[in-house]
Amino acid sequence: MSHNTFGKNLRFTSFGESHGSTIGCVLDGFPPGMAITTDEIKAELIRRATGQSRHTSQRKEKDDVQIVSGVFEGVTTGHPIALIIENTDARSKDYSNIAKQIRPGHADYSYWKKYGVRDYRGGGRSSARETTMRVAAGALARKWLKQNHNITITAWLSQLGDIRLQAGDLSKIDQSPFFTGEIDRVPELDLYMDKLRKSGDSVGAKISAKACQVPAGLGEPVYGKLDAELALAMMSINATKGVEIGAGFDAVAQNGSEHRDEIINGEFASNYAGGILAGISTGQDITLSVAFKPTSSLRIPAQSIDTDGHAIEVVTKGRHDPCVGIRATPIVEAMMALVIMDHIMRHKAQIQSNHLNK
Amino acid sequence: MSHNTFGKNLRFTSFGESHGSTIGCVLDGFPPGMAITTDEIKAELIRRATGQSRHTSQRKEKDDVQIVSGVFEGVTTGHPIALIIENTDARSKDYSNIAKQIRPGHADYSYWKKYGVRDYRGGGRSSARETTMRVAAGALARKWLKQNHNITITAWLSQLGDIRLQAGDLSKIDQSPFFTGEIDRVPELDLYMDKLRKSGDSVGAKISAKACQVPAGLGEPVYGKLDAELALAMMSINATKGVEIGAGFDAVAQNGSEHRDEIINGEFASNYAGGILAGISTGQDITLSVAFKPTSSLRIPAQSIDTDGHAIEVVTKGRHDPCVGIRATPIVEAMMALVIMDHIMRHKAQIQSNHLNK
Amino acid sequence: MSHNTFGKNLRFTSFGESHGSTIGCVLDGFPPGMAITTDEIKAELIRRATGQSRHTSQRKEKDDVQIVSGVFEGVTTGHPIALIIENTDARSKDYSNIAKQIRPGHADYSYWKKYGVRDYRGGGRSSARETTMRVAAGALARKWLKQNHNITITAWLSQLGDIRLQAGDLSKIDQSPFFTGEIDRVPELDLYMDKLRKSGDSVGAKISAKACQVPAGLGEPVYGKLDAELALAMMSINATKGVEIGAGFDAVAQNGSEHRDEIINGEFASNYAGGILAGISTGQDITLSVAFKPTSSLRIPAQSIDTDGHAIEVVTKGRHDPCVGIRATPIVEAMMALVIMDHIMRHKAQIQSNHLNK
Amino acid sequence: MSHNTFGKNLRFTSFGESHGSTIGCVLDGFPPGMAITTDEIKAELIRRATGQSRHTSQRKEKDDVQIVSGVFEGVTTGHPIALIIENTDARSKDYSNIAKQIRPGHADYSYWKKYGVRDYRGGGRSSARETTMRVAAGALARKWLKQNHNITITAWLSQLGDIRLQAGDLSKIDQSPFFTGEIDRVPELDLYMDKLRKSGDSVGAKISAKACQVPAGLGEPVYGKLDAELALAMMSINATKGVEIGAGFDAVAQNGSEHRDEIINGEFASNYAGGILAGISTGQDITLSVAFKPTSSLRIPAQSIDTDGHAIEVVTKGRHDPCVGIRATPIVEAMMALVIMDHIMRHKAQIQSNHLNK
Repeated sequence: MSHNTFGKNLRFTSFGESHGSTIGCVLDGFPPGMAITTDEIKAELIRRATGQSRHTSQRKEKDDVQIVSGVFEGVTTGHPIALIIENTDARSKDYSNIAKQIRPGHADYSYWKKYGVRDYRGGGRSSARETTMRVAAGALARKWLKQNHNITITAWLSQLGDIRLQAGDLSKIDQSPFFTGEIDRVPELDLYMDKLRKSGDSVGAKISAKACQVPAGLGEPVYGKLDAELALAMMSINATKGVEIGAGFDAVAQNGSEHRDEIINGEFASNYAGGILAGISTGQDITLSVAFKPTSSLRIPAQSIDTDGHAIEVVTKGRHDPCVGIRATPIVEAMMALVIMDHIMRHKAQIQSNHLNK
Repeated sequence: MSHNTFGKNLRFTSFGESHGSTIGCVLDGFPPGMAITTDEIKAELIRRATGQSRHTSQRKEKDDVQIVSGVFEGVTTGHPIALIIENTDARSKDYSNIAKQIRPGHADYSYWKKYGVRDYRGGGRSSARETTMRVAAGALARKWLKQNHNITITAWLSQLGDIRLQAGDLSKIDQSPFFTGEIDRVPELDLYMDKLRKSGDSVGAKISAKACQVPAGLGEPVYGKLDAELALAMMSINATKGVEIGAGFDAVAQNGSEHRDEIINGEFASNYAGGILAGISTGQDITLSVAFKPTSSLRIPAQSIDTDGHAIEVVTKGRHDPCVGIRATPIVEAMMALVIMDHIMRHKAQIQSNHLNK
Repeated sequence: MSHNTFGKNLRFTSFGESHGSTIGCVLDGFPPGMAITTDEIKAELIRRATGQSRHTSQRKEKDDVQIVSGVFEGVTTGHPIALIIENTDARSKDYSNIAKQIRPGHADYSYWKKYGVRDYRGGGRSSARETTMRVAAGALARKWLKQNHNITITAWLSQLGDIRLQAGDLSKIDQSPFFTGEIDRVPELDLYMDKLRKSGDSVGAKISAKACQVPAGLGEPVYGKLDAELALAMMSINATKGVEIGAGFDAVAQNGSEHRDEIINGEFASNYAGGILAGISTGQDITLSVAFKPTSSLRIPAQSIDTDGHAIEVVTKGRHDPCVGIRATPIVEAMMALVIMDHIMRHKAQIQSNHLNK
Repeated sequence: MSHNTFGKNLRFTSFGESHGSTIGCVLDGFPPGMAITTDEIKAELIRRATGQSRHTSQRKEKDDVQIVSGVFEGVTTGHPIALIIENTDARSKDYSNIAKQIRPGHADYSYWKKYGVRDYRGGGRSSARETTMRVAAGALARKWLKQNHNITITAWLSQLGDIRLQAGDLSKIDQSPFFTGEIDRVPELDLYMDKLRKSGDSVGAKISAKACQVPAGLGEPVYGKLDAELALAMMSINATKGVEIGAGFDAVAQNGSEHRDEIINGEFASNYAGGILAGISTGQDITLSVAFKPTSSLRIPAQSIDTDGHAIEVVTKGRHDPCVGIRATPIVEAMMALVIMDHIMRHKAQIQSNHLNK
């Protein structure tokens, strides 16, 4: 069983490698009748694009997304929506020097052990380039959620290395390359990143997110819980090492009398549950956090082996991206949108629709 | 789409409610030819059973599991293995007083919002009673993994409230009701729990786990990653609020030069990755941690509403279990076993089998 | 991947063997709020039961179905509905004489080649005993379809050996063991069957079926077409060798000017399509036919081998059922109900619900 | 749930409309390590291409297939194989006159009822243009089956209108546009078709097929039977109205003593089963037949309605294809290849691999 498909009633399948000719996706099960343009999709792609900030990698892609099926006269038809982007900045440079290298912390070792063959150019299929298509498909899902249920989804940087950040003013997250609502702390973050890049090292990041106006009742017990499928989605993003819902790991040291969200005057008095009880949404904000590991490609040399088993030293030349986690922010939003939209469709399947619309 | 099934090539479907007549499961896709007895399954069930310790709830179930299909003359046939257990301690007491109560932190609110009807007896379908069947099915998976690949899976209590515990001597985890390898700290834990129970409050727990001898190459990029499906599995366990793979959230503040596990003299020098790179196992131990929230049923009163929307006060009478997370330990092991066995089967499907056996 | 599950949004999983202790099923995704009793299910089971007529096999099962989960206070809860039946007439007789026999036309050969082990008692998992659970689950689906969409499904015997039968008066199909609406031809069929049984031989049967009041719009192009999934369902019934939709194989020799169902005065003038165009229902009656092969267990000896490869002669002793196809009639109805209900749920997932209810 | 995906362990997803810019597919789960070129795929595409014979439609497509992912240095990598073809002969002519027409026998009515919107250009998503991608993906599956298991799959025209044809010399099916092994009857067929086209009418066709060297043991009881999934595959092809396995509908009038394939001197003495018993392959040839309805687009006028409900007369102008079934031959082969390869992968997942290779 291969798994380049995500979702049940709304199914997203991606294809393409970092340095292949084309990347793309098929979004199957999307309802008919929604207007959509490539410009709307491209607006989301720009948010995740590389080459926007001095802190990210130098690859510059135009990301000229094409809708090649599923949309007719500007409107979705209910048929599979295929989106493709031609890779333009995947230069056919000489990769012979890295063809046998096993770069520590990368997919090189595990892909080689699994498949016996691998596309060594820029990570091949394991590259974060694939996430471009998630953001593209997420753009459709986000529009549908907003139009039909007034649901909005926002993610932000909540920790960079050991710097912790508050949500701040979330309307401002697109004003800096850090996706932070604490806009006045951007200079501090700039300084931190510059120093880090000079050192040749990298750090991890924590991204937090919330979905507002999600109706109560979404989630399929026992193995299709909303939180479980959000965890699946987040862990499928490159470099993820952890996922929390609501209070997350802080719940371990909490007392039950504090954690259980009481209902006072008909309203939840707190939201440690993160908007999900027993796998089903309660109508409160859905909240989660995701841990991203530090970039593995560094100028600092690392000990490793090559595919013949010989000891080698691996060094990444040229500019690098000292914190890949930051750029995961729009991807977290996109995956959250795909999960929630899928769950709305599943809910509609089983339950009389008037329940959802109440 | 309903979701009482877990897994792709090895598929586990459970049914039954806390106070129904029978709980059960169907394990579909299990290979033919493995010997199994009800005693072997029961040995695992005893580890998770309630009523074993003064710290857990008072429900006493014999858990007399029956194999009703899929095993012939003591050997699996390749056909669906159905296991059932008759509930014996689900007393037909008067539930009329709780039929309309919405207990904070429980499934009551979200199930009621989703389905419009609910089985209010002991949590109905949302009860942890369902996890009995996971442990039963896990017993088969664990035996198969051990016999065919020498894989062993062990989970332990790594945090109780604010008490942090080391792995210690994992051969001793079954010697106390705390599933701890730090066997000399059991008196400390006993004391903590007694005090907690007297206070009428509860705490969360963190369970850690590892799987040893897992071959390299398991995991399906991009949406069936081994870590992503482990996260799905763990988040499907009652009361889970977070999942970490390897370094988990600690990776956020790590430097890349530390986190990326270098290969020195042909061996990984560390295992911050938790045995998984780019979603595929590396052959190192698979390590993870899971956060469980504190028990919501407390003697301490809570503000809530009933299903008519009236404000009420909810109090749980009688003995309670002040830390449900502890008893999740064998469930974490069982789910890990089901995920890994499923991935071995998926790997065998796509890859020439000699790769896996190397 | 094992496949004891059928359906997508409404998922039916069966378990159990012919001579095991218990057979059962799990119906997952069934909507909450429908009243159902075991008597309603049993009424359908009686229609398919053996031992009703002098023409069928002598096994007598009480088929005392139990609802062990998913129904609370007489109403479905939205959780998995598990049904079980204890086998009572599976006598523990001595099977040692048949343990190694490969009976021609049975599952013996292919199961043995696939699994290496097999339950030789009465066909084990391959026995038509499994279809009892389809009829049980079908009873729930049929009630839901009738209540919510006024859909009715009827199947009848349209060919017995070389005797062709018309639909006749379908309100009378339960008045004879032949499921025929041509009630005045029952004596002819009785005579034919008696003669056949005396000869020790068997014949095949053709069952036709129709579903009325199915709304237009059901079916998922391109690989989840309504007709394609009906074919999957029908071919999953024991002994099926062919499936036709609408005109079926007669369409080969038809002219297009005849076959294409014109719309005259706003009504379809014919229904050669069988109510399905391009995989999607049109609102006309859904019509299909299914070919069942003749019983393979005969008193007439057959040449075969045993599991050691030695040539043997196989003879079935005692009374036999000279036409298994007849009894497939309620199974065809049940599978048709499960497919249509699943498609209604899929349709609701993707399309604004007001479309379906129009 | 949308369904533009086919298969379980080998999953094929197609996208694109008749007159969209691009059609394509994603083949997920294909094993790594097989060499493949676009020329090998194109060789199969040419067999199904339009414009080859005076009997088929006039659309001329170059079908210049591109492999955009999943193949690196000429070899499959185990990652999703995406194939795309740009439509070149989908002229942007004026479709305004047909935008509201409901053509009898086409998808127009049911698509319109289901989705509310539709791509009216050349059938949109319902067009047989989609089957190009099945043949493309089938080319990869056929190569893999031949290389790894020496399996060959051949389909041929067995009935054209009321003309019945024998298999004949199957090595000659590519020598005429009729895919017939009775090569000396081609003039008769030519004459029949010319006459038919002059009349402005059309007929159906029956295509038969066999797969040789399929190992015993493929198929997943009870709902993933090899024959059931072949039926699903065949019914998913445009214009199919019936499917038979082995003796098919002829089995209805057979006696059991004839139908059950006896084993004499260690060999099956006949193959009425079509190589499948109880849903699992026996090692004999897999045989099946498929009924295709006559073309619905005719010069002969038909009564219908438009999307406003007004009565209209529909006439297809220009040249038409009087028997669409003939060109389905390579599609039947491709779908058979995809099903069998998927089942080999499923079998490998569950069963120790030495069973399959024996």
